[in-house]
Amino acid sequence: MHQDTPDTAPYAFAQPCPIRDVLDRIGDQWSLLILQALDPGTLRFSELQREIADISKQMLAKTLRSLEEDGLVKRTLYPEVPPRVEYRLTDLGRSFLVPLKQLTDWANTHHRAICEARDDYGARKDRHRSG
Amino acid sequence: MHQDTPDTAPYAFAQPCPIRDVLDRIGDQWSLLILQALDPGTLRFSELQREIADISKQMLAKTLRSLEEDGLVKRTLYPEVPPRVEYRLTDLGRSFLVPLKQLTDWANTHHRAICEARDDYGARKDRHRSG
Repeated sequence: MHQDTPDTAPYAFAQPCPIRDVLDRIGDQWSLLILQALDPGTLRFSELQREIADISKQMLAKTLRSLEEDGLVKRTLYPEVPPRVEYRLTDLGRSFLVPLKQLTDWANTHHRAICEARDDYGARKDRHRSG
Repeated sequence: MHQDTPDTAPYAFAQPCPIRDVLDRIGDQWSLLILQALDPGTLRFSELQREIADISKQMLAKTLRSLEEDGLVKRTLYPEVPPRVEYRLTDLGRSFLVPLKQLTDWANTHHRAICEARDDYGARKDRHRSG
């Protein structure tokens, strides 16, 4: 079936909900941090690791592979000695920074309100229990 | 410590990364669908369940509680017989629809490109293996 309809079949079998698929894949903290770190330009693996202080080598490698697979990051291997590997945003990856920034701005602006709402909710529950 | 500094302590103990905290809590498919379903106005539990066809009663109840806890959704109980419960967006919840729409638009626009990138990546890997 894949071979009969090569232009449509792979997409047709993809997950039906784009927003779910996108958030499942690139909605995690590490993906977002890597995409933001690559905003100014190309970086090597070791530079990315320095840039994102908390990330383990394994998690950085895994997340970069996933971002490369989704077409958001381009990996280039320079066959030098020792081999040099560089990462940069693709046009697709760069286009994602726009809605990502809107979301980050919203989270930064409203995080305190969310935390206060949680405290209020907890306090109301406690009153309800003891009342 | 909480009692000494009631205005700052709860927030100070919250998670340090707002974007991570926000995505962990409301970045799931059900939260996003519920927030979008409440955009036109107030809905009862049963109306929300009809609106979001695939959601189970348990998941709807759990997600609504989480959204209420975070201050994005307001739950109102009318003590009638039988009791009526209605849900609506708070101002905070409504403000989240703006970046959410940006993200949904981006996902809808670029989902095909992401799926095609995955297919390409898979094909390149296969060639690499067999080559």
